[in-house]
Amino acid sequence: MSLYNRTSSMPVSSLKKAVAHTFDAIRQKKPIIYQIMNNAMMNQTGNATVHIGAKSLMAHAVEEVEDMVSLADALAIDSSTLTGPWIQGMQLVGQCANDKKIPIVFDPILFGATTYNTEAVLQLLNSLDIAILIGNSSELKHIYNATAYMQGAESVTDVLDPSQIVRQLAQKRNGKTIVALNGQKNYVSDGHRVVIIKNHCERLNQLVGMGCVVSALMACFAGVTNDYLVAAVGGFAVMGVCAEQATFNASVHGTASFQVALFDQLSTLTGSELESLMHIDLIDN
Amino acid sequence: MSLYNRTSSMPVSSLKKAVAHTFDAIRQKKPIIYQIMNNAMMNQTGNATVHIGAKSLMAHAVEEVEDMVSLADALAIDSSTLTGPWIQGMQLVGQCANDKKIPIVFDPILFGATTYNTEAVLQLLNSLDIAILIGNSSELKHIYNATAYMQGAESVTDVLDPSQIVRQLAQKRNGKTIVALNGQKNYVSDGHRVVIIKNHCERLNQLVGMGCVVSALMACFAGVTNDYLVAAVGGFAVMGVCAEQATFNASVHGTASFQVALFDQLSTLTGSELESLMHIDLIDN
Amino acid sequence: MSLYNRTSSMPVSSLKKAVAHTFDAIRQKKPIIYQIMNNAMMNQTGNATVHIGAKSLMAHAVEEVEDMVSLADALAIDSSTLTGPWIQGMQLVGQCANDKKIPIVFDPILFGATTYNTEAVLQLLNSLDIAILIGNSSELKHIYNATAYMQGAESVTDVLDPSQIVRQLAQKRNGKTIVALNGQKNYVSDGHRVVIIKNHCERLNQLVGMGCVVSALMACFAGVTNDYLVAAVGGFAVMGVCAEQATFNASVHGTASFQVALFDQLSTLTGSELESLMHIDLIDN
Repeated sequence: MSLYNRTSSMPVSSLKKAVAHTFDAIRQKKPIIYQIMNNAMMNQTGNATVHIGAKSLMAHAVEEVEDMVSLADALAIDSSTLTGPWIQGMQLVGQCANDKKIPIVFDPILFGATTYNTEAVLQLLNSLDIAILIGNSSELKHIYNATAYMQGAESVTDVLDPSQIVRQLAQKRNGKTIVALNGQKNYVSDGHRVVIIKNHCERLNQLVGMGCVVSALMACFAGVTNDYLVAAVGGFAVMGVCAEQATFNASVHGTASFQVALFDQLSTLTGSELESLMHIDLIDN
Repeated sequence: MSLYNRTSSMPVSSLKKAVAHTFDAIRQKKPIIYQIMNNAMMNQTGNATVHIGAKSLMAHAVEEVEDMVSLADALAIDSSTLTGPWIQGMQLVGQCANDKKIPIVFDPILFGATTYNTEAVLQLLNSLDIAILIGNSSELKHIYNATAYMQGAESVTDVLDPSQIVRQLAQKRNGKTIVALNGQKNYVSDGHRVVIIKNHCERLNQLVGMGCVVSALMACFAGVTNDYLVAAVGGFAVMGVCAEQATFNASVHGTASFQVALFDQLSTLTGSELESLMHIDLIDN
Repeated sequence: MSLYNRTSSMPVSSLKKAVAHTFDAIRQKKPIIYQIMNNAMMNQTGNATVHIGAKSLMAHAVEEVEDMVSLADALAIDSSTLTGPWIQGMQLVGQCANDKKIPIVFDPILFGATTYNTEAVLQLLNSLDIAILIGNSSELKHIYNATAYMQGAESVTDVLDPSQIVRQLAQKRNGKTIVALNGQKNYVSDGHRVVIIKNHCERLNQLVGMGCVVSALMACFAGVTNDYLVAAVGGFAVMGVCAEQATFNASVHGTASFQVALFDQLSTLTGSELESLMHIDLIDN
């Protein structure tokens, strides 16, 4: 299944419209997002999901993930605070999701930091169809190199810029995975085009786990569209726009009240506001 | 032990007074509430407990639950984010609590959603004395049907209204369990009378885990009274009244600041405010 | 390695300066703080760490703790919500930290409450070099008695005041561990001198897990200085000063908005504010 056909000839304005339209669909269709997130962020990813109108489902025992997947419209998983049973649960839930054609958003947190994490994540990456792979620059470079190594290719050089990382890694995944890079600017690619999402706020760096929240938001989009480029761009855009709007809130006096204002924005944002406030660029190959 | 004698002839005004009096007793006696809650809500249930003046205790290793129960005045457990050791811990802690006559508030989250969850919960329900069983409409209907099935009786029909669900399920538990239904309106029954608690705020539906917080609040009440009908009504009333009051707060601009205002109310509410603001109806059989 | 030399002749004003200077160093050097905290507080300890400018790292699988320690500048662990694998992870991570000379801040939560907890904690205390041991009065008295018992000495009497508890327990640890007592007033000792940190706010008692947050703050300090007396005093001072300042915030209407204001203060506090606002006494032996 190629994603190119759907959006390849879409100009920036059409992409914005598609994102806004899909965002409105989340509030209407209320997709069920099954999340296996790290312990530190479960409450926040669950609330972000519910704030924008989707439903949150959590459970990670190996014995029940198959039943849970059957209830879900999309799946979001990350790889931090791993344990043996947790990994087994994610492997099984991933296979079930693939069998049932339920899209997976995967955040390989800490990939490359520990051997245990790296091996567990590679096993997931190699055995599962991932709709959206989201990571920071370090994680995605390590995945690129690990993938290149297994394919007998060269390592990525450090000078490779973010737009090249996402495009080339998406190509390595045979165009089946949208690759999303989380940073000061955010990059999304289907292996062909690259979208740069520029909405951002420095304060996001003073909060833990905002990447996990973005993963959950992308999964909400993926629960109502099968255009996963739109879903990935949408997750970044919602977070960036809400963060920017939060800074205008007079009751923000520091990072904690900023987080409250940010989540307030998630609960009140509309598709038309999102469309008018999102700043994106499109690089066609 | 029948609960009927204590409150059966009590009019609505007396029930309100009993709830308010018991609420004040929480701040005075500072009961210790042992909580085995799901990972996503531990911080919030712990803080709700401490905000209203009780103390929160958490631990779930099989090896220490018996010692922990000895320290507690009431126990609150739920059945989401289950794992094998977690279930063993809950079974053991429940038996210890029964042995020591410490009341159990049990929230069978996701009952009926997965076979694993359903079997684990049924085992707990069948082997333990539960002081208060709290669930949403779906969970309680599934429990009613599972119980009816085991007793060779008919399944509950879908037309059964909430007040019938709580009353009939309480009867099936032989009047030993107060049954509480969490929804737009909240229902509580001892198998005989039904109390409807009408305080509510739509925003509660945009937050994850508010049912867990209500369970913790009910356990705080159950830690200072053995009239568990009053305890169940009290938990719903505190949550409903605080949610309604939170909406009057000028600094609420969305769901996240609503949650902050709600928890602020928990920390400042008094028994007399609770008495004057709670809206309840009483249906006598 | 004796800590006495560094600070023994330091008057109160110099100690304040050292704390303020070290606090500024956290924002500059951004130490990586590896935290194995209980499930209920992971999000809050992580955010406190990031708010004051350090970085937070979390993982607890036995298989990856060694790799994680290699990335860290300090380690913070606590002993609540224990399970078997969690304990193994902490034992291993502690040994790795000792091998790599990475300081450990340890909070023996619930020590003395359950046999399981007590045995697990004693094993950690006896086998590891702990840079800072932080606990409440009950936990530290139990540790003192357990240590005294193993050394064939008398039990501590209940009349022992907090300054004696921290000094004598530090002496029992051979001056290698700074002992810190968390209460209305906070006490820190190296076995010789005792520092009393008086900044406090009653509202802190209405929040769960603030001791865990203090542990994380102490670890942030310990990540940039090897004067662990300064680190322990710094953790208490930052928490106390921020709590006091939070009460001046006009948007505080209860305990939840107090917590938001407290964390806002963590994100905006400067070393010079800390120096001018901290209230400490020094008792020289």
